[in-house]
Amino acid sequence: MAFRIYGDSISGNCLKVKWTADRLSLAYDWIETNVLTAETRTTEFLALNPAGQVPLVVFADGRPLAQSNAIIFHLAEGSDLIPSSAFDRAKMLEWMFWEQYSHEPYIAVARFQMRYLGKPAESLEPRLVERGAAALARLETQLKQSRFLVGDTLTLADVALVAYTRVAHEGGFDLSLYPAVLAWVSRVEADLGIE
Amino acid sequence: MAFRIYGDSISGNCLKVKWTADRLSLAYDWIETNVLTAETRTTEFLALNPAGQVPLVVFADGRPLAQSNAIIFHLAEGSDLIPSSAFDRAKMLEWMFWEQYSHEPYIAVARFQMRYLGKPAESLEPRLVERGAAALARLETQLKQSRFLVGDTLTLADVALVAYTRVAHEGGFDLSLYPAVLAWVSRVEADLGIE
Repeated sequence: MAFRIYGDSISGNCLKVKWTADRLSLAYDWIETNVLTAETRTTEFLALNPAGQVPLVVFADGRPLAQSNAIIFHLAEGSDLIPSSAFDRAKMLEWMFWEQYSHEPYIAVARFQMRYLGKPAESLEPRLVERGAAALARLETQLKQSRFLVGDTLTLADVALVAYTRVAHEGGFDLSLYPAVLAWVSRVEADLGIE
Repeated sequence: MAFRIYGDSISGNCLKVKWTADRLSLAYDWIETNVLTAETRTTEFLALNPAGQVPLVVFADGRPLAQSNAIIFHLAEGSDLIPSSAFDRAKMLEWMFWEQYSHEPYIAVARFQMRYLGKPAESLEPRLVERGAAALARLETQLKQSRFLVGDTLTLADVALVAYTRVAHEGGFDLSLYPAVLAWVSRVEADLGIE
């Protein structure tokens, strides 16, 4: 399965796709696509993804697939990154939907505003700070109970959640308050070969 | 598979689970759980779902599963609501992740604020109105090209997206601007037996 990944290397959502492809030794071309200079808003790009978002994967037959968590699910079907038990597979998806609804919109957005738009921590919306901290607290509770988010082995839930958790400090979150999360980040990075 | 569904009947996210279970003739008990009176914030409920959200399903063996789209994926595994082609399955998940990230946070939230908190349309955040309209426009573009969101038959993508689209007018959106969407809502309602 040869394919192109359109992605911005500063985006955790895009890196999820790269890490999954690398972990599975899949062959791909990475097309660096700069979000800050609106390369996702060109006519050419919008023809591939009307939502104007990266990551986007385009397969050899020309068919495009968007949404980071849908892409990694597709790339990993049949691999050990997806649990073979139906219930565990559902728990994995529970974490992945939670990530996009209750984690990324706060932690990734706070980080983007501070690191890439230069906002000082004090000027972040309080909602971002509170809900981001609540998301990290919830991860901490789970990771005190299990080595990975779904049981004892790495799944796509870990790939999806580590993407912005590992850089949460760039959005003003103090990860030392969440020791189980910090230890898990190291485990996931080691498994995925992230430096 | 007997199970309990904790849900609030005013919530599209909860209704997705009911519709899917009914469509598949699954046996369940519905536990009405009022969001407006914070029944999702009791100690008992938080023990079942630390995220404090409905819908929540609890299976006969006591194991809980949250996140509407993860629940319906689990209930529907092996049924005709999930395409057998891997690529179509991925496109279905693409729409479901997009729903939670780019549709529900605008359309469901505008509807909640107007219908249940009594806000007038003029006082909605402009961001809700703009992004909600953009989401409806994107659905319109797709539904001019295909009968359902992924090809010619109903999938979970339609179940997920119809939940708040069919009541978008309660959030101030004028669905008559999106005729292909309106026709699709009728088709999906007919298939699911929604009145």
